[in-house]
Amino acid sequence: MTKEQRLVSTISGREYPFERIEEFAENGESLEVRVCGIETAKARAGVHLWERFADWMPFDRTDAAISLGEGDTPLIPAGGRLQAVTGIKNLLLKNETQNPTWSFKDRGSLMCVLLARELGEDTVATISTGNMGHSIAAYAANAGLRAVVFVPPYTPQEKLMAMAMHGARVIRVAAPDYTQMKNTVLELAGRLKLRIVSGNGPIRVEGYKLTAFEMFEQMGRQVPDFIAVPTSACGHIRGIFKGYRELQKAGLIDRLPRMIVVQARNCSPVVTAIKQGFDHVVPFTDFDTVAEAITSGNPPGGDEILDKARRCDWPAEDVSEEEILQGQRDLARAGFFVEPSAATSLPAVRRLVDAGRLSPDSSVVLMLTGAGLKDLNALKHHPCNAVIDSDLESVEADVAKLLNR
Amino acid sequence: MTKEQRLVSTISGREYPFERIEEFAENGESLEVRVCGIETAKARAGVHLWERFADWMPFDRTDAAISLGEGDTPLIPAGGRLQAVTGIKNLLLKNETQNPTWSFKDRGSLMCVLLARELGEDTVATISTGNMGHSIAAYAANAGLRAVVFVPPYTPQEKLMAMAMHGARVIRVAAPDYTQMKNTVLELAGRLKLRIVSGNGPIRVEGYKLTAFEMFEQMGRQVPDFIAVPTSACGHIRGIFKGYRELQKAGLIDRLPRMIVVQARNCSPVVTAIKQGFDHVVPFTDFDTVAEAITSGNPPGGDEILDKARRCDWPAEDVSEEEILQGQRDLARAGFFVEPSAATSLPAVRRLVDAGRLSPDSSVVLMLTGAGLKDLNALKHHPCNAVIDSDLESVEADVAKLLNR
Repeated sequence: MTKEQRLVSTISGREYPFERIEEFAENGESLEVRVCGIETAKARAGVHLWERFADWMPFDRTDAAISLGEGDTPLIPAGGRLQAVTGIKNLLLKNETQNPTWSFKDRGSLMCVLLARELGEDTVATISTGNMGHSIAAYAANAGLRAVVFVPPYTPQEKLMAMAMHGARVIRVAAPDYTQMKNTVLELAGRLKLRIVSGNGPIRVEGYKLTAFEMFEQMGRQVPDFIAVPTSACGHIRGIFKGYRELQKAGLIDRLPRMIVVQARNCSPVVTAIKQGFDHVVPFTDFDTVAEAITSGNPPGGDEILDKARRCDWPAEDVSEEEILQGQRDLARAGFFVEPSAATSLPAVRRLVDAGRLSPDSSVVLMLTGAGLKDLNALKHHPCNAVIDSDLESVEADVAKLLNR
Repeated sequence: MTKEQRLVSTISGREYPFERIEEFAENGESLEVRVCGIETAKARAGVHLWERFADWMPFDRTDAAISLGEGDTPLIPAGGRLQAVTGIKNLLLKNETQNPTWSFKDRGSLMCVLLARELGEDTVATISTGNMGHSIAAYAANAGLRAVVFVPPYTPQEKLMAMAMHGARVIRVAAPDYTQMKNTVLELAGRLKLRIVSGNGPIRVEGYKLTAFEMFEQMGRQVPDFIAVPTSACGHIRGIFKGYRELQKAGLIDRLPRMIVVQARNCSPVVTAIKQGFDHVVPFTDFDTVAEAITSGNPPGGDEILDKARRCDWPAEDVSEEEILQGQRDLARAGFFVEPSAATSLPAVRRLVDAGRLSPDSSVVLMLTGAGLKDLNALKHHPCNAVIDSDLESVEADVAKLLNR
């Protein structure tokens, strides 16, 4: 690695060495990578996205063998049904469920594993019950690194097993609550010089910024007016935005998209703070929501998002449990089976249109962040009136009736 | 549709009209589409695969709005671990789990839905408990068609619900066994002029042939020596081969890959017949295998595969339950979490290398047909020794021990 990168704290602008083990500044601010020379960066020819945008990458080179084929996901114009549901004609779906472990996390995991290899580390560790742990386990396996995943005691057996299948070591920590578990692990990690990657780490964000480059190509170098992102740790939303900022710095685009911050109402620390005009997130505890994958109740990355939302006039919206489930059904009725967290954007956009915050003529991208198969338990919340019970004698009559024949 | 296509039976060569409702000839032979003018077909520029290979397509045009973004899946060189497991250095993984409903079925479902639209049909129907039903439900939803899925009574509730989420009507037919249910449904479908699409239908095969065109591009117009395909209804394996045959007809390649027919030993009607040199498949009944997605015990498409295997010298191999589970672990340890059926090819290739049927210098593609998330129940068959139970007091010591620090 000969590129001269620095980490910079996103609000105060203080600099840190690129190799820093902790993913946040001492005061809790999010860090981001300042890649040098972006003003003169040029898109190049290449098979992989990271080749075409090598000038924006934090590493001199990307070892293709580390990739599991993440990215290159479809950006699909929504049909009439979803246009009607949202009130937006120019609605696009970015289907991140078509990643190697079926969520957007894979783009960030690629970067985490590349960093570990660059720095000669033999282990990638994270604290997760879900998509993050699975993605890190898969990427570490492919790269020949050890994966360690810390989980709370209530983690379902099949989620443990999916990580274990990839060879991850899963440490199940008995603790009174998740926050205590997390704090204890982060402390011991500092002492043991173990890098714990989170959903908002600076290197992970470098992976998400490639999503912006990909959409830039897919949209013929146009920029959408809005990009709606289900938000939890905040890495995804700021990563996509960083990508567009860096395209603008290089003179490839002349305006930025506005991000739409979306959360479940039952756990909306960032959206609540934006709506109230606060400088700090509003912590949520003891909440319950079907949108399991976006349940950071007190995300340390949230304050940066508040700052950007204020300066860039980002809309923010939270949605009810019933809206999330209806959104999941609406997306499935259009062909897209996503997990509940990924279905939050659809009703959020509808709300913003109704409130006059989004013009029906805007172009809006919805990030479909994770596959519906990730959380089959959520299906129990839906009415099941589609099944017709029949038998060999009556099936012909039943079919004829159904088909009106 | 102005192209003049015909259906042709694959062994006797008898012709049928393209619009034929039944997917097989009267004698049970598989049918295939004879696309006219392939000898002079040329690859063109275009965003979509079906645009670049429009000359090979059975329809004059493909409505992009019908696509959910299937295909364009990664073809990834296997790392050292899987090279060692198989004994093949030039081993490639075609990851079909990165399709819209996370299995290869989507490529065929696109074609089924296009056909229904071309012919003015309002319904797409199938008999399925799994990947096929889910894929058809999603594509019909996107196209605004009615999906009808016939299922046996023992179908798990979450599989029904996943199809129902897409708006499919699910008809659960009480019957003594699956074969009786299927025969009854096929008979009534003939009377009601209801097209029942199967895993081996001629139009579905046209979707799978695009996989060959995609690999042709991905491999820089080279042809792999072998392509290993987990085989059940037989549509996938013959579709990929048809694609290569049609590239050869157009003069774009000068040799064909050899297909490797792979089945679970506990349900190996085609592989057993190939190994024994029979002209007809050997029906399997009352079997049990973890490879749920490939359990056609008496596939009507099998005889065509026997015919091709003999004429083209295709290797065939069946693998034990233990080998399948080990294959699933081996693939996961390399970063790929697939369902058990998709893990059959890995041990099959190993066996063929050991038997001298495959040279270690051959180039071999493994089709990873479906995602591991499709069948989390299968995880119970794996040992779970990766979990370390800990608590707030002992977690630091546990981690230090794990890391040797």
